[in-house]
Amino acid sequence: MVCVSKGPWLDEDEQQAWRSYLLMNRTLETHLERHLQREFGLSKSDFEILVNLSESESGRMRAFELGRATQWEKSRMSHHLSRMEKRGLIRKESCQARYPEIAITEEGMAAIKACAPAHAARVREFFVDIFGPDRLAVLGEVSDDIVAKIGQHCATDCPPEVSGLDAT
Amino acid sequence: MVCVSKGPWLDEDEQQAWRSYLLMNRTLETHLERHLQREFGLSKSDFEILVNLSESESGRMRAFELGRATQWEKSRMSHHLSRMEKRGLIRKESCQARYPEIAITEEGMAAIKACAPAHAARVREFFVDIFGPDRLAVLGEVSDDIVAKIGQHCATDCPPEVSGLDAT
Repeated sequence: MVCVSKGPWLDEDEQQAWRSYLLMNRTLETHLERHLQREFGLSKSDFEILVNLSESESGRMRAFELGRATQWEKSRMSHHLSRMEKRGLIRKESCQARYPEIAITEEGMAAIKACAPAHAARVREFFVDIFGPDRLAVLGEVSDDIVAKIGQHCATDCPPEVSGLDAT
Repeated sequence: MVCVSKGPWLDEDEQQAWRSYLLMNRTLETHLERHLQREFGLSKSDFEILVNLSESESGRMRAFELGRATQWEKSRMSHHLSRMEKRGLIRKESCQARYPEIAITEEGMAAIKACAPAHAARVREFFVDIFGPDRLAVLGEVSDDIVAKIGQHCATDCPPEVSGLDAT
């Protein structure tokens, strides 16, 4: 049993806020995803891989690094990278290191450049500007605290074999 | 082009907060999901359907009502309900109305009752108590504003055929 401050159940206000958060999160995600798909033919998963690769110094990352960045499981990553390679967005490259690298192609770079301004504008309109700078800063801080707390928990209480982020 | 207050790009602080939020959201979701699966054999999708049905007055909902509540697409809903029916968690019932109803079974009700306290305790430990009451209340309000704004946008600017929530 987890050690909690007020017993496990959420009171009415807590429950309401938690559900509002879940609904917002899903509504926003669906909205952003729908526009990416409709206007640029990219899924949220495509977008995420392309953002990570395009922001890496060399335009190349190993699959396990992408796995760490996205928190996807190995099999999902492997299948999705194969589909993206067939569509010409990425390329698997052999290199001297043990594991091949995943490189963004010119086509992939063009795709992410084309959709980035509209995507950023939607994030601003439907998230950043509604929070406003002060509340957004607080959200960022609390978010970092939550990630740190889950990280500590996983380091001590969750067996590593269920982490899904093995380096392969 | 979307009408925005400061141009489309996010500045460094905004970008940082947005990414912290995305990482928190994914880390928390993965964490809750992993424990549901490991301790109770339920996926996040199973849990979501069972929560909705168990909280409905009669323990029954139409598929399109579940679709509205979860914002899943029709095909995902249909496939997932079939899998849950095979596992005995729900039952599709013919009734006098045009569309069959989805009912939670005794087994489904037992499953949701078994996992709910541990799930609530995790939501408290890794989310509610880290926000604290004041910041949580603000998050709830901003979340409602975002959902309302996206709703208005979809009512006026998004063609209904892409909403994925048709009543069938």
